[in-house]
Amino acid sequence: MYEEEFEQAVVQEDDKFLQDPIIRQMVIQLRAMDGYGTYDTWSDARVLDPLILTKARRKAIPVIGDPDETVISRIKAFYNAISQLIERETGLLVVPVINITHEGFGRVLIVVGKLVAFDKILRDVHRFGFDSLEVLAGDAQKIVQKAAALVNEHRVVAEL
Amino acid sequence: MYEEEFEQAVVQEDDKFLQDPIIRQMVIQLRAMDGYGTYDTWSDARVLDPLILTKARRKAIPVIGDPDETVISRIKAFYNAISQLIERETGLLVVPVINITHEGFGRVLIVVGKLVAFDKILRDVHRFGFDSLEVLAGDAQKIVQKAAALVNEHRVVAEL
Repeated sequence: MYEEEFEQAVVQEDDKFLQDPIIRQMVIQLRAMDGYGTYDTWSDARVLDPLILTKARRKAIPVIGDPDETVISRIKAFYNAISQLIERETGLLVVPVINITHEGFGRVLIVVGKLVAFDKILRDVHRFGFDSLEVLAGDAQKIVQKAAALVNEHRVVAEL
Repeated sequence: MYEEEFEQAVVQEDDKFLQDPIIRQMVIQLRAMDGYGTYDTWSDARVLDPLILTKARRKAIPVIGDPDETVISRIKAFYNAISQLIERETGLLVVPVINITHEGFGRVLIVVGKLVAFDKILRDVHRFGFDSLEVLAGDAQKIVQKAAALVNEHRVVAEL
């Protein structure tokens, strides 16, 4: 777990992006996967903090590395949250399919009916993170909008 | 590897389905994944033999079990071969996405462009097999035809 290396939190308790719908959904997803109850006493800001990789933090992560369970759960939380928001936008059931190898490569597909609303090859999974909560929310929002537009364009296939 | 338990081969060297295009493609896929060269001295019939589960063979496999590498490679060979044949039918690039957990559950998606041409939830992966080569070829052929029909129906999405 990289958070042990981060002595200073970068996400402030009053970061206004903590109220962003996609960030709120990510917190829900992260807490849902927290089987050992580690996050029970943590604030939302603290739960999200390890996802924010400043330059200094990035430097501290080895270039090559195997992703651990914690990083994989963050990636799942990210794409699950995105899927939830695509559901809200489209009113259709959205299924995220996330495949990550032990070596840290992977693939994400977000499927709506018979439509692949989003797909991406993942690399360097152990370095998954964002410059700030604002960037995280912005990146996620872009994916939601693009996927929802594709669903609306090919609604017949998305409803199959 | 279950084949060690099968004293008697059920696939005969002159089985006419050894010439079936999908069966031939399966042999190619199985040999391609055979990293240790186990199949180098084996006939096609012998390579395929463990995929044929007669009643007696099925009985010998525990109801609950974890899938080993060999079984997983057979499932991959099956869906890779199907993907190859969908490519030939449609002229489009076909990507199989196969996700199998250690517990033997899984999911197969066959993706063409932005179209999910086929998808299936896998269960009891350690018991993967067919009554005969004829049944294997028939089942595969049905998937190819159905997927190719879907691609042709939604060609715009499949070409995205």
